[in-house]
Amino acid sequence: MATYAAPVREIQFVLNDVLNVGSLTEMPALADATPDTLNGLIEEAAKFIQGQVAPLNAPGDAEGCKLSNGEVTVPKGFIEVYKQYQEAGWVGIANPSEWGGAGLPYTLAKVIDEMLCSADVAFALYPGLTVGCFEGILASGSDEIKQKYLPKLATGEWTGTMCLTEPQAGSDLGAVKTKATPNGDGSFSLEGGKIFITSGEHQMADNIIHFVLARATDSPAGVKGLSTFVVPKFLVNDDGTLGARNKVTCTSIEHKMGIHGSCTCSLQFDGAQGWLVGAQNTGIQNMFVMMNLARILVGMQGLGLCELATQNAIAYAKDRKQGKAFNGGATIIDHPDVRRMLLTMKATTEGARVLAYETGMYVDMAHHHPDPAVREEANDWVELNTPLVKSFCTDAAVELGSTAVQVYGGHGFIREHGVEQIMRDAKILCLYEGTNGIQAMDLVRRKLMMHNGRLAQRFFAKVRSESTGDAPLGFIAKPLREALDELEKTTAWLQESFKTNPDDAGFGAVDFQRAFCLTYLGYNWLRMAKAAINTNDETFKAQKLNTAQFFAARMLPQVMSLCANVRQPASELMALDAANF
Amino acid sequence: MATYAAPVREIQFVLNDVLNVGSLTEMPALADATPDTLNGLIEEAAKFIQGQVAPLNAPGDAEGCKLSNGEVTVPKGFIEVYKQYQEAGWVGIANPSEWGGAGLPYTLAKVIDEMLCSADVAFALYPGLTVGCFEGILASGSDEIKQKYLPKLATGEWTGTMCLTEPQAGSDLGAVKTKATPNGDGSFSLEGGKIFITSGEHQMADNIIHFVLARATDSPAGVKGLSTFVVPKFLVNDDGTLGARNKVTCTSIEHKMGIHGSCTCSLQFDGAQGWLVGAQNTGIQNMFVMMNLARILVGMQGLGLCELATQNAIAYAKDRKQGKAFNGGATIIDHPDVRRMLLTMKATTEGARVLAYETGMYVDMAHHHPDPAVREEANDWVELNTPLVKSFCTDAAVELGSTAVQVYGGHGFIREHGVEQIMRDAKILCLYEGTNGIQAMDLVRRKLMMHNGRLAQRFFAKVRSESTGDAPLGFIAKPLREALDELEKTTAWLQESFKTNPDDAGFGAVDFQRAFCLTYLGYNWLRMAKAAINTNDETFKAQKLNTAQFFAARMLPQVMSLCANVRQPASELMALDAANF
Repeated sequence: MATYAAPVREIQFVLNDVLNVGSLTEMPALADATPDTLNGLIEEAAKFIQGQVAPLNAPGDAEGCKLSNGEVTVPKGFIEVYKQYQEAGWVGIANPSEWGGAGLPYTLAKVIDEMLCSADVAFALYPGLTVGCFEGILASGSDEIKQKYLPKLATGEWTGTMCLTEPQAGSDLGAVKTKATPNGDGSFSLEGGKIFITSGEHQMADNIIHFVLARATDSPAGVKGLSTFVVPKFLVNDDGTLGARNKVTCTSIEHKMGIHGSCTCSLQFDGAQGWLVGAQNTGIQNMFVMMNLARILVGMQGLGLCELATQNAIAYAKDRKQGKAFNGGATIIDHPDVRRMLLTMKATTEGARVLAYETGMYVDMAHHHPDPAVREEANDWVELNTPLVKSFCTDAAVELGSTAVQVYGGHGFIREHGVEQIMRDAKILCLYEGTNGIQAMDLVRRKLMMHNGRLAQRFFAKVRSESTGDAPLGFIAKPLREALDELEKTTAWLQESFKTNPDDAGFGAVDFQRAFCLTYLGYNWLRMAKAAINTNDETFKAQKLNTAQFFAARMLPQVMSLCANVRQPASELMALDAANF
Repeated sequence: MATYAAPVREIQFVLNDVLNVGSLTEMPALADATPDTLNGLIEEAAKFIQGQVAPLNAPGDAEGCKLSNGEVTVPKGFIEVYKQYQEAGWVGIANPSEWGGAGLPYTLAKVIDEMLCSADVAFALYPGLTVGCFEGILASGSDEIKQKYLPKLATGEWTGTMCLTEPQAGSDLGAVKTKATPNGDGSFSLEGGKIFITSGEHQMADNIIHFVLARATDSPAGVKGLSTFVVPKFLVNDDGTLGARNKVTCTSIEHKMGIHGSCTCSLQFDGAQGWLVGAQNTGIQNMFVMMNLARILVGMQGLGLCELATQNAIAYAKDRKQGKAFNGGATIIDHPDVRRMLLTMKATTEGARVLAYETGMYVDMAHHHPDPAVREEANDWVELNTPLVKSFCTDAAVELGSTAVQVYGGHGFIREHGVEQIMRDAKILCLYEGTNGIQAMDLVRRKLMMHNGRLAQRFFAKVRSESTGDAPLGFIAKPLREALDELEKTTAWLQESFKTNPDDAGFGAVDFQRAFCLTYLGYNWLRMAKAAINTNDETFKAQKLNTAQFFAARMLPQVMSLCANVRQPASELMALDAANF
């Protein structure tokens, strides 16, 4: 079985020594969130998560969810542990205190998300979607709606969903057909079928609040005719008590490659009563407020699985004896190819953690900073980083899950060792909340083009400044500057080519996204190396410099060949008619 | 559900137009194996495999194998279809006719293996291991042993196994503990436990013949004290009838990530009666005759899954409507990122097919050619290509399985669509018969060093000659020559560094292996492009040139960065003490 020990030391190093999380307290809204407070909460969460949640992971995968007469049964232990988790106040830890949350930094919530997803990513989806639903209502709902739903979502007494996808409408939400007919009393009557609804039906909470994308009967076709609605499983009376069962039923659950403990439901809305969230026809914008945060959450899920894969592979490699290494070592960690795999895992996971937490800190700044210029800059970073966090951490989760299996050899393929589950659980992360190809299009088509390319310029300036003149860290600063030059050149090429031949830009988007992420990780490894040099812990310092060297020499140079790929025209390749392909 | 249509046109193109399979008939032993004969047999096999075997794939995955009282139940339909398959004579199609086989080319058997593995890789393991066991006995057994076991293995009336792995002995077979005590009558009594035994116990055939690696009681420790034994499930009387049940029992079966239809058994030998195959203490050599062919077979398994992933992804992309492409296309195949994924799949699968079939042809030449010099050269190619076929096709199967899921989007993660099964089935291929890291060590440590580097020199000479002076195909010939120069330089570096610092060579071995394979695929795509230009089918020609262009421009250049990685010293990276990692 895969085991999980929360990497508290690593987490604290990134927050305190690399990213200076203490700077968040300069904002009045987060003045109480001192590093000591955060460290204490992280240690407390770590203890609960590794002690109570992690043991659910393998049995939950084996048992899965079951549907019977419209009722979903979740795996054994999920209900009890979720109750403890929500009663401890972890669900709404970063939700605003005026709506029932703890008002702590979003960054802290992301750290907890990482740990929870390492422990059991399927379990983590229940609180995860609840926060997503909270964020959607918070951003666009009326005060009446907020008052009715947010406090119970913040405590996790009720859970939430995001109901977007339909069989014909996945990446293309403009094709949504679910229909909302006004009832004349301010409410709507929803008709239609939604698929792939995570946590769509279960017995873990007293109520389930569906955040539904649908089309009002008098709205136009396409994305501009969509609206968002809140549709509770049980209607909520004005005094907050629960009323009748609403007309939304779970008609089937999916049998999936992984995340078996998470129920993925088809929901049928048969005249279910719902209420507009935000103005009519602004659904796609309302949905994207929630979706963007959900994408960062998916990145945390990926990071959590990267960590789980990495720590289990290292532990196995230190324990497993098989042949004698060239250097005389008795366990497989001394075989150079195994060492290469483990260094790839560490370089990826630890580098991705800085990207993810930094994005969390920018979200905090974008929400809370008193200076509008700082908020604007922070918001630019959130926009830029969202597709990077989502795509990089999730592609890495699949890759590192596969690498962990490889380190275990044949044993990795056997369920009881637990690492094959990582590979199975991870793949969905590359698909939901926008496939990683969609993320790349978001990066290239929107983020590079916004504000005359300002977002990427901020990145180039920051990395250039960080990487200039560091003689002792030249081993990474130099290849980082080279990668950056190449990335900047390629960015200019893409910004231009989108105007003339969008197929060229689209064809290279995924490679560009990866090149951007690797450059970002180079920047992170440079900062980690700087911070590590200042620690007194010689072992920790040696570990960090070892991995930084590996990243600088063997992973960062991939940026060059990826960028070379991006800057090739694709028109000739796209010229073959689809029918002849 | 994934569907499978055997790519007969593609197969015949590679055999006839690219590799000139007709040249096999120049060897007296294969004089009857004309292209027409082979084409006819391929079409017949294709019809049976796609009609009868492919429908077993999804249900077999869902049902899996069950163990009860030492008896294994295979999925519904396996017994019946296997019986038809073996009665049609496919199992021993390439086994020598003097021992009951059909005496047709090994190349043909590999083509059938590819198709069978596309259809159901778990099912394919039953005949696959049978042929492996046949090959082991054929290479080293006495005439008496051959007479007793080979004819029934050739027809597939009996199936075979390879019993190598023990809990403490996987990659390191020198640690094998299973003990063989002489009974004084020429037979031995085997005691010990084997794990991960594919097809170790089932009811699909009248008998199961185990080819067992064990240590005679008077043999030394380590690999030099191993011997190979034949241990039948039912003892075989001198008249060929079956006698008593031998003392070998299945104590458990594994619950695995994939290949659920294949039973993976733990076998306990409790005084089981066995007979030496070959001389005592030559077990590791005997085993490797079989193992090397098994590695090529595993490559075919990978190729089969690559084809399955590719053809399903293309079909889905041509059918699925989602948003409008830049070029106005209505289905997702016109989205440039989807096209990029599909071209990667085609370039990989079709390029790997040439590598795999060519290796098959070299096996035929090494066995049958009357000229010893030709046999020697062919054997060099088999030695060189074996780790390439095994590692490249299997890594590609995981990668392309994952890409197919990505093309399907969220639907790919759902079991009923069948592509997630490809990813799950594929991963074992990277692990068994020597992990792909072991293949890389075999390539770098043995194959590059043999005969003063003669094997790689043959490759360099052949590719250089093929890629020189082809003006109309300069788009691929030029990058191929560049890749080849880099590979040659890197080969020299490795040959040297192994003498001084084997950790350097070991650290870069996997990257080198991939660079070698991509260069080989460049050579294959050049040959395919040449052959395609000569066809009259304009659509086929356009398809091939389109994919060749993609490979040349976007995949082949990876050789440069892989080789740059290989030529870096790793000593500093390996210097961190294992305990501090």
